[in-house]
Amino acid sequence: MIESIRNPRVVAAARLKKAKARRTAGQILIEGPNLLTAALDAGLEIEGVFALAEDELTARAGEAGAEVAIVTTAVMKRLADTDSPRGPVAVATTPKQPAIAAQDTVILVAISDPGNAGTLIRSAAAFGFQVVGTPECVDLWSPKVLRSAAGAHFATAIVTGAEPSAVGEAGVTLVALMPRDDGRPEPDPAAGPVGLLVGNEAHGLSRRLVNEAAASLTIPTVNVESLNAAVAGSIAMFAVAQGR
Amino acid sequence: MIESIRNPRVVAAARLKKAKARRTAGQILIEGPNLLTAALDAGLEIEGVFALAEDELTARAGEAGAEVAIVTTAVMKRLADTDSPRGPVAVATTPKQPAIAAQDTVILVAISDPGNAGTLIRSAAAFGFQVVGTPECVDLWSPKVLRSAAGAHFATAIVTGAEPSAVGEAGVTLVALMPRDDGRPEPDPAAGPVGLLVGNEAHGLSRRLVNEAAASLTIPTVNVESLNAAVAGSIAMFAVAQGR
Repeated sequence: MIESIRNPRVVAAARLKKAKARRTAGQILIEGPNLLTAALDAGLEIEGVFALAEDELTARAGEAGAEVAIVTTAVMKRLADTDSPRGPVAVATTPKQPAIAAQDTVILVAISDPGNAGTLIRSAAAFGFQVVGTPECVDLWSPKVLRSAAGAHFATAIVTGAEPSAVGEAGVTLVALMPRDDGRPEPDPAAGPVGLLVGNEAHGLSRRLVNEAAASLTIPTVNVESLNAAVAGSIAMFAVAQGR
Repeated sequence: MIESIRNPRVVAAARLKKAKARRTAGQILIEGPNLLTAALDAGLEIEGVFALAEDELTARAGEAGAEVAIVTTAVMKRLADTDSPRGPVAVATTPKQPAIAAQDTVILVAISDPGNAGTLIRSAAAFGFQVVGTPECVDLWSPKVLRSAAGAHFATAIVTGAEPSAVGEAGVTLVALMPRDDGRPEPDPAAGPVGLLVGNEAHGLSRRLVNEAAASLTIPTVNVESLNAAVAGSIAMFAVAQGR
C-alpha cells in the first residue's frame, strides 16, 4: 500500500498532469474505470496502475503487464484530475503518432477548452474522422480532454502538433468552418476527403488560414452570433458524413 | 466603494449562486460584460450592479435603473462564479416564465452538466427552438449555464421545471433522441412542431418517456456508444431546422 503522496512513483505519475511532462516522458494518465477499460480494449500499453483496494480492473491491468499499486484515498486525489476521483488511475505509454491519412479530418485550430477538444474527438470517432490538433491547441492527451472524449481517443487516429498545411499535403481538401457565409464555394465531399478547420472559441480562424482553405462551410443559424465550437465542428462532420 | 464581503448587499447577491436562493428571490446573477450587454440589449430588469472601478457598462446599467456599486477585487471574487472574474456582476429579475408555445422545442430531460445545458440553449436559439427543462434538470439560470450559453438565454424562450407532457399538451409532437435506432418512426417536421427529448448524460431517457414519445430520432454513428448529449441534441435540432 502506498500511503504517501511523496512516494517517487506517485510524484512521477502526478507530474503527468502537465503537458510538458507528458511530452518529455512519452506517457499519459488514464483516469477511471471507463477510460481504463477503453484503453485496455484498445491494447494501449499500460505501464502502471494506482488503485484503491476496492477498485476493479487491477487484475486485468496486471495480466496486461502493468505494475499495480494499491494506494490511499489521499494518494488517489493527488493523481486524479477530478475532485471526487474514481480509481484506478493508470500511467500509459502515449500512443505513437499515426501518419496523417488521406481521410476526412477535423483540424482543431488553437481550440483552448479541453471540454470542446474532447467533445470534438468523440464526434470525430462517431463520424469516421481522424483528428489533427495544431501546435496552439490544448494538449489532446490531457486528463480533461480524455475524460470529455469518453474513450474516443482509442477509437480514431489522433495527431498533435501538426499544421493544417500538412493535412493538405496528405491529399485532404481544407475547408474553413465559418460562422457567417463568406460566399466561397462549399466543399464537395464526393471530390475526396475534407479537412474541416475548427477555429479558436474566442477568435475563430485567422484570415491567413481561411485564405489557405479551398472551400468554406457555414451552418445556417438565427438569433446568435455563433454556435459553440464543438457543436459547430460536430454538425459539420455530421453533414459531411451524411453526404458520403 | 464596497470593501467587505460581509456587506449585506454582497451577501444577498452571493446567495444567488444557489438555485434555491434564486427561486426564492426571483433573481439571477449576470456575470461579465458580454452577458450583461446581452441582458441589457434584451431589456432584462437589472436591479443592481457590482463593478470594479475600471469596469465598463456601469453608466449604461445605471441609466437602465440599476443601483451601481463599485467593489474591490475580493468582493468581485465572492460574487463571481469564475476564478478570474471579469466584472461587472449584476443582479437581475428572473425573466417571467413564458407559456409553452406550439413551436419546435428542445426538452432537457434531467441534463446534469451546466456546460451541456448552456450549449443546448445556445443551439436552440440558433435553430429557432424554445427550451424546456424538466424539474430534474440543472437550473437553467445558474451562472455556469448562463456563461456556457453565451447570451442565448435572452434570444429564445426558456421554461424551467416543466414535464414533457406539458409540451405535448401544447400541440408539440414528442420525439425521443436515441443513441441506437429502435425501429420506431422518425418525426415528420412537415406535420408540425417537434419536441426533442434529450436525456441525461449517463442514463439517457427513461423507458416510460420513450414510450410516451410519438417518434424516435437517431443520429447514425460508428465507433462510439454515444455522442455528447449537447452535440446530439444540437445535431437533431440542426436536422429538424434543415427540414423546415
